[in-house]
Amino acid sequence: MRIARFSIDGNVAFGAVEGAGPGDEGEPVLDIIKGIPYADFELSGVKVPLSKVRLLPPVLGNKIVAFGRNYADHAKELGNDVPETPFAFFKPTTSMIGSGDAIEYPSFSSELHHEAELAVVIGRMCREVPRERVKDVIYGYTCANDVTARDVQKREKQWARAKGFDTSCPIGPWVETDLDIAAASDLAIQCTVNGEQRQLGSTSQMTHSIEDLIVNVTEAMTLLPGDVILTGTPAGVGPLNVGDEVAVTIQGIGTLTNKVIKRG
Amino acid sequence: MRIARFSIDGNVAFGAVEGAGPGDEGEPVLDIIKGIPYADFELSGVKVPLSKVRLLPPVLGNKIVAFGRNYADHAKELGNDVPETPFAFFKPTTSMIGSGDAIEYPSFSSELHHEAELAVVIGRMCREVPRERVKDVIYGYTCANDVTARDVQKREKQWARAKGFDTSCPIGPWVETDLDIAAASDLAIQCTVNGEQRQLGSTSQMTHSIEDLIVNVTEAMTLLPGDVILTGTPAGVGPLNVGDEVAVTIQGIGTLTNKVIKRG
Repeated sequence: MRIARFSIDGNVAFGAVEGAGPGDEGEPVLDIIKGIPYADFELSGVKVPLSKVRLLPPVLGNKIVAFGRNYADHAKELGNDVPETPFAFFKPTTSMIGSGDAIEYPSFSSELHHEAELAVVIGRMCREVPRERVKDVIYGYTCANDVTARDVQKREKQWARAKGFDTSCPIGPWVETDLDIAAASDLAIQCTVNGEQRQLGSTSQMTHSIEDLIVNVTEAMTLLPGDVILTGTPAGVGPLNVGDEVAVTIQGIGTLTNKVIKRG
Repeated sequence: MRIARFSIDGNVAFGAVEGAGPGDEGEPVLDIIKGIPYADFELSGVKVPLSKVRLLPPVLGNKIVAFGRNYADHAKELGNDVPETPFAFFKPTTSMIGSGDAIEYPSFSSELHHEAELAVVIGRMCREVPRERVKDVIYGYTCANDVTARDVQKREKQWARAKGFDTSCPIGPWVETDLDIAAASDLAIQCTVNGEQRQLGSTSQMTHSIEDLIVNVTEAMTLLPGDVILTGTPAGVGPLNVGDEVAVTIQGIGTLTNKVIKRG
């Protein structure tokens, strides 16, 4: 199932996406969910056209834990070593925007970069998750763009501002709940800017697997339903400019599209 | 006014602290607040003894933004340069505990350190706050301990695990709302372990002022009511061991006390 969160006429709801798959015909719709998706829920049968809504970030979580340099080719393209153990940083939930929302070019940077990433969405409160139980705490998968002020990242030892500014975490378009870990660990991931391919890789190229990352983070801290794990970006990161349209597509999930505007 | 958040008989509430000042006699009490403290609220007149409650983190926010190396003597004691511009990192809200709660020594570290800090609590949603308006977005001040797995911090390039593990952010005992910025920028700050003084400084020694820090962070991101800014630690950081009692005292605010236990 594909779970989106959206607003329509000022109301916010979760809904199941129907008819947005590769072979589907006709207009995709959202079947409005009664209740919240992390617990038991029912589909209401009330359907609204996908084209009529504003998609929101499809999660309502407490934190975003992101891993750095988890694709060897990307670590090397920025002149960095590939870390032997994963290392994590946070993006705040105030940085999230949905597909179709605008990335606002921040005033304190002149070198904004895209970073296409597979996002893992957590479904259960958990800590110290053993490797064999990781599959049980995952709710689903979505696309994310770990937008980075590369110049600020170089200047500031910790990356709170470089990777935590408002609109720096486009995420969506929805959460795909029907992939298992094996499938999620072998998906094509692509980033285009104005239709030109910039990044193309596979989630099979991660240095540390989805299981590794969740074991690593939950060794230290509790994850809550709706929390997001960003799993690193493949090679090909590069500049975003005002007016660009950036799209992250992950096989079997969908496409996350955002325009870059000047912060007003 | 001093605003605490607490639980009693399984119920959670905010309350105004009465009778816990230096010259006060008799048992301190909490006057239960009707509503939430960031908006208009009333005191209910229903009072419970402070000794009967469990104090919780006195804030309910979205994020904790912490600044590194903001006291020159502390930067030097760890062999680091004093940064010319502030740099920030995040601690997750899942790391917060109240005064009296236990710090759980994490399994992946063997070098836990205390770091006493003045915490600034935000009262209004804000972004791009001009220096002269900083005072308007501050709700109050409290004590915090930026507990750090120093060995992990040295090993991992970004500090999400080293400074973000569960119980790594003791905060409290309450929020003092009657200090203005000038007063908050000249307070004695002390840390003791088992009654022995380890850190003693003044918030006047910060390299970057409270105004600087809030201008810096809100240049990048939106702060929400209940968000916390940690302003750095003075010299004297050092080890915490299982069984230790660590106390952070800030002049005019109060004392935050926590025991260190083995994670069970």
